[in-house]
Amino acid sequence: MIVEVSFVPIGDGTSLSRYVAKVIKNIEKSGLEYQLTPMGTIIEGEWNEISALIGYSHNLIFEMGVERIITNIKIDYRIDKKSSLQDKIDSVKNKMVEFDG
Amino acid sequence: MIVEVSFVPIGDGTSLSRYVAKVIKNIEKSGLEYQLTPMGTIIEGEWNEISALIGYSHNLIFEMGVERIITNIKIDYRIDKKSSLQDKIDSVKNKMVEFDG
Amino acid sequence: MIVEVSFVPIGDGTSLSRYVAKVIKNIEKSGLEYQLTPMGTIIEGEWNEISALIGYSHNLIFEMGVERIITNIKIDYRIDKKSSLQDKIDSVKNKMVEFDG
Amino acid sequence: MIVEVSFVPIGDGTSLSRYVAKVIKNIEKSGLEYQLTPMGTIIEGEWNEISALIGYSHNLIFEMGVERIITNIKIDYRIDKKSSLQDKIDSVKNKMVEFDG
Repeated sequence: MIVEVSFVPIGDGTSLSRYVAKVIKNIEKSGLEYQLTPMGTIIEGEWNEISALIGYSHNLIFEMGVERIITNIKIDYRIDKKSSLQDKIDSVKNKMVEFDG
Repeated sequence: MIVEVSFVPIGDGTSLSRYVAKVIKNIEKSGLEYQLTPMGTIIEGEWNEISALIGYSHNLIFEMGVERIITNIKIDYRIDKKSSLQDKIDSVKNKMVEFDG
Repeated sequence: MIVEVSFVPIGDGTSLSRYVAKVIKNIEKSGLEYQLTPMGTIIEGEWNEISALIGYSHNLIFEMGVERIITNIKIDYRIDKKSSLQDKIDSVKNKMVEFDG
Repeated sequence: MIVEVSFVPIGDGTSLSRYVAKVIKNIEKSGLEYQLTPMGTIIEGEWNEISALIGYSHNLIFEMGVERIITNIKIDYRIDKKSSLQDKIDSVKNKMVEFDG
């Protein structure tokens, strides 16, 4: 499945990038394919791996002194075909070319 | 933590209520506190319980013949104070009265 | 359409209820049907009305001294049949009874 | 503000890329800065521009024969500093280097 996740630590100033950086470094260690976007992190993997990663990310952020986190997760889970991060982008771009044609 | 989840089965007609009903009946069995809203289901519990429930819900929906699910999850996780589903509503309503006062 | 919206003011403490209360009082004035949930506010209306309300809500929150807001919006827009807030809940509950059989 | 949007047309098969392609071509015409990700489209602009674009996108998708759309929107709106799509990525990457250091 492909999962987009974003963590919003509340109550500790408007700059959130150091929390995101901490979490991303941990995602990197997991070995899962991921992509950082301006609005979140997109990860490819199984739900048991990714949900464990999300649970651990909460702990990492709390350890940095935050007391409340709002987390948004969007899952795209399909069993009709395998679709990687790059496949999804390519699929849209190919259709855009067809509309041009 | 408090978690809102909504499952969108793709490609099987515009009526989604039978899938939601199936999932809710399973959440009910879990014994976790929950509330059904017009846009999702709000559950109170620990991440390991809720993430397992989400994983199982995907299986339930796939077993009903769906081949793709988009799932949205929003987590409100705070360690500074305990806040139940009803506490959150009450807290806003009390503030609304203050603004009136 | 039915729209769920939640505003997360960043950087001003972990208690967000006074901002939500301010915004809800304004939604109330709009005359649109709405429902407060533990995770957001669900509104029934047209996109031009609701998007204007969202824009105005941002201004209200900034006026209270916040400098950053993360806003989540989920829209359920269908043209095959009219479905109110209560219809959506009823539809799931009826299906739950059917499963009980 | 920076806005991530994703449209999920319901009930018309599991392949959604042609709808996304149609919408993206229209976003392109708007002249707003945008980035396509595997999970949505991220746009930089003012709320009145972006909300009009979202309203128009719904019409485009309905014209293609769809009868129900679930749309997710996440807004990051800050007035303390200007932050472009690239700034947000750079900010996290810089912090990641610091943690390494």
